[in-house]
Amino acid sequence: MKFHVMTLFPEMIENIANTSILGRAKANNLIEVNAVNIRDFAFNKHKSVDDYPYGGGAGMLMQAEPVYQAYSHIVDSVPRPRCIFLSPIGKPFTQELAEEFAQEEELILLCGHYEGIDERVLEEIVTDYVSIGDFVVTGGELPAMLLVDAISRLKKGVLHNDSSAEFESFQDNLLEYPHYSRPEVWHDKAVPEVLLSGHHANVEKWRHEQSLIRTKKHRPDLLEKGSLDKKDREFLSQEEEKS
Amino acid sequence: MKFHVMTLFPEMIENIANTSILGRAKANNLIEVNAVNIRDFAFNKHKSVDDYPYGGGAGMLMQAEPVYQAYSHIVDSVPRPRCIFLSPIGKPFTQELAEEFAQEEELILLCGHYEGIDERVLEEIVTDYVSIGDFVVTGGELPAMLLVDAISRLKKGVLHNDSSAEFESFQDNLLEYPHYSRPEVWHDKAVPEVLLSGHHANVEKWRHEQSLIRTKKHRPDLLEKGSLDKKDREFLSQEEEKS
Repeated sequence: MKFHVMTLFPEMIENIANTSILGRAKANNLIEVNAVNIRDFAFNKHKSVDDYPYGGGAGMLMQAEPVYQAYSHIVDSVPRPRCIFLSPIGKPFTQELAEEFAQEEELILLCGHYEGIDERVLEEIVTDYVSIGDFVVTGGELPAMLLVDAISRLKKGVLHNDSSAEFESFQDNLLEYPHYSRPEVWHDKAVPEVLLSGHHANVEKWRHEQSLIRTKKHRPDLLEKGSLDKKDREFLSQEEEKS
Repeated sequence: MKFHVMTLFPEMIENIANTSILGRAKANNLIEVNAVNIRDFAFNKHKSVDDYPYGGGAGMLMQAEPVYQAYSHIVDSVPRPRCIFLSPIGKPFTQELAEEFAQEEELILLCGHYEGIDERVLEEIVTDYVSIGDFVVTGGELPAMLLVDAISRLKKGVLHNDSSAEFESFQDNLLEYPHYSRPEVWHDKAVPEVLLSGHHANVEKWRHEQSLIRTKKHRPDLLEKGSLDKKDREFLSQEEEKS
């Protein structure tokens, strides 16, 4: 899978892409991250890509043409890959959307900077507006690389273990259960006994119940998405009575 | 303001912290980013910090003790700074939370890796569980640096312009209006005339109305937070009638 990241900070993209799990996935040719420097497509000798906004206001905007030229340089092929703009006006990024994007062979990610990008080029090239949350950051680079990370780890071989076989948060709309590793007692806290029992079915049951309790406590909205069966609902109402 | 980031990938934290706006803020001594390598606190000669989970399952866990030792190394002072763990079970990160954290002088951010961290050390040191969205990434480093970015840009002097004077997304629970820069006509698309008028009040009115339209279209949930006045509501119902 190939990611093209349009940015004013290509070294930031490359640094992140070369580290940790992404770095290993790149080294193993499982993913490719192509950082495209929008500044290379500036059309003046100062290599500037920003200008004042019409209508006034502080801050500078990224101009349409360099962004368009950088895009045109990437999309020499038809059909054109989806082009994602990271923006607070976008659709919230979720695990579901990560799974959808993971079906693509190529993706373009456009990172804004300064006060924003000229609206007209966005209208022309962007297919997906995606938001990583209701907060403001200085540029689209970290959000873009979060998408690259979340999408890449769904590709076969990127994680060492077969992640699809493992429980993780948001599977069945539940949060992950708590984890314990050695030693058995740490700072006077013992590992829950059931985890030491070697009784696989009991371990699974305990973990599932912990997931239910945590989700109910921290993210009751996820439970409303309706993946609970009758036993789950009974367990949660018993828990409620207890407390 | 000082950020301590507990991580297995300190070079990733440092690379990001040295780039773009964060790099400039660091160079100007407006922020400090202290990447603490948890592996330095491993207690065996192989410098390993992970072990198998009790109860079975694929994947490894970060053990309690190295995390605790790294934390103890940071908090030699009282009162202890808040310690944020990036986790899907956390409170969703929002602009409001960024503003709250920006009041602190020091923050600790704990980045998980592998399948997670031993629950017992989390119980002992974490004061805030924060989630950056309903999706799964390979580690807490990118989420942590998103927080550092969102929080830092609220500190005086980090952005060139005085951001507090400028409109931005989520101010008054509205999304930002569209931006236009030179040239006046690009790919047959003209800049909206009002922005060329030089009539400040009309420009402001148009921008406010565009924010209303965009928020209604993309994030109607934000409008329900109730920052609309009577004129805003009238404008939106007129728009609805038109379409």
